[in-house]
Amino acid sequence: MERVIRLLLAYDGTAYCGWQRQRQGEATIQAALETALQRICGHPLTVHGAGRTDAGVHALAMVAHFRTHVPHPLTAFSKGLNSLLAPDIRILGAQETNADFHSRFSACAKIYRYDFYTEEVMPPGLRLYMGHLPGAFNPQPARQVLAQLVGTHDFSSFERAGSRNLQATGGRGAVRTLMQTSCEPIPYIQNGWSIRLQGDGFLRQMVRIIAGTVIEIGQGKRPATGITDILAARDRKAAGLTAPACGLFLEQVIYPPE
Amino acid sequence: MERVIRLLLAYDGTAYCGWQRQRQGEATIQAALETALQRICGHPLTVHGAGRTDAGVHALAMVAHFRTHVPHPLTAFSKGLNSLLAPDIRILGAQETNADFHSRFSACAKIYRYDFYTEEVMPPGLRLYMGHLPGAFNPQPARQVLAQLVGTHDFSSFERAGSRNLQATGGRGAVRTLMQTSCEPIPYIQNGWSIRLQGDGFLRQMVRIIAGTVIEIGQGKRPATGITDILAARDRKAAGLTAPACGLFLEQVIYPPE
Repeated sequence: MERVIRLLLAYDGTAYCGWQRQRQGEATIQAALETALQRICGHPLTVHGAGRTDAGVHALAMVAHFRTHVPHPLTAFSKGLNSLLAPDIRILGAQETNADFHSRFSACAKIYRYDFYTEEVMPPGLRLYMGHLPGAFNPQPARQVLAQLVGTHDFSSFERAGSRNLQATGGRGAVRTLMQTSCEPIPYIQNGWSIRLQGDGFLRQMVRIIAGTVIEIGQGKRPATGITDILAARDRKAAGLTAPACGLFLEQVIYPPE
Repeated sequence: MERVIRLLLAYDGTAYCGWQRQRQGEATIQAALETALQRICGHPLTVHGAGRTDAGVHALAMVAHFRTHVPHPLTAFSKGLNSLLAPDIRILGAQETNADFHSRFSACAKIYRYDFYTEEVMPPGLRLYMGHLPGAFNPQPARQVLAQLVGTHDFSSFERAGSRNLQATGGRGAVRTLMQTSCEPIPYIQNGWSIRLQGDGFLRQMVRIIAGTVIEIGQGKRPATGITDILAARDRKAAGLTAPACGLFLEQVIYPPE
């Protein structure tokens, strides 16, 4: 009987070319999981993830699923899988789920967090897990702009140039809905900040371009009043810089109650 | 005129074989600093550090010094030096100091911190900066033992076997004084703990062996009452495991007021 196994996992993206399987020889999270799971299950399989994080991006709670007919206990897919994976990928949980569950298509929302540091010298132990964007940061204009981004908009200006793929987006183009946004100091890191976005879907590099733009606004390099114009432009060049990948974390994938 | 330059620096020890210069080709913090400073100063020089951290050990505030006659402004040894170093070593400050200052011999105390994590699965983003020692941890017996270690003792049992070098210890053998010890939860990491030791000097691997022993006691693997016997044994085999290097941080070097 075919089983659908749902995994909850965390990873440090530093050493990987992102989530998605690439050409032979490029380390990706998906390929690492598939290789290890094929050893456990003894048959070829595909691991589907809730989101395709880019190179260097981290996840605190990615959800993924795969299909198998082996009768192994679930610990084979948590403890057993961890024993085959490098320590920069950790399975936090494995459960049996219903046949029509799909980690990506069943998700109704995701929360991404962008962590950044604004002092001049980056502490070595933080450099892999925060964007380094030096310059005095005022959260008030940043929050004002983040509040204006809540709602349903065409986010073309916040999408990596040339990445649109209409088929993959299910025909909704660059229209996405942000339900919640925030910008808060990291309590234990002086001059460290987190920007959080909860949305029903995210375009390629959308979180990093929003973060880069909002940080420029908080640092006074760009007026807070310009956000309506940036959205209206539907042009990547209207927005700010793409914040570095290392500060981005997939924090949560949300599914409707069963 | 000869100048003595005092540096304050932080480093991520993950990629290094420790502080001290080794054979050609082995990356060490000292060698990285000397190579970069020789480029800046144009003459051979030696960088002396306050402590010789082992492979994989980190520093939040190491103090070091070197001698030069070049008239460069101090920013050459902070910003300038940072531009030549890899981002896992960062100069936090450079100042001119008096001719008889020595980063190691002038220091009157050092504070080391050992961070560890006791849950079963290690979060990938913490794995390089905390020891992973799974098992429920009770801080009460750990604190009791740490309090007993305060004072002047022969710490032979907490020294890496075979590392005694009487000349290097200035004749005081394995006698050291711990002024303060503590064990506190890390506020932002559930089941993360910090053990801090302030002492006038530390034997090879002393902090890691004390941490390993104290963690075993907090996890009920060793009785708290045994600490007097461990000290009295003057034998490495009497103490517990050497906690992994990645959890250890040199947190502060203390000098007498000038």
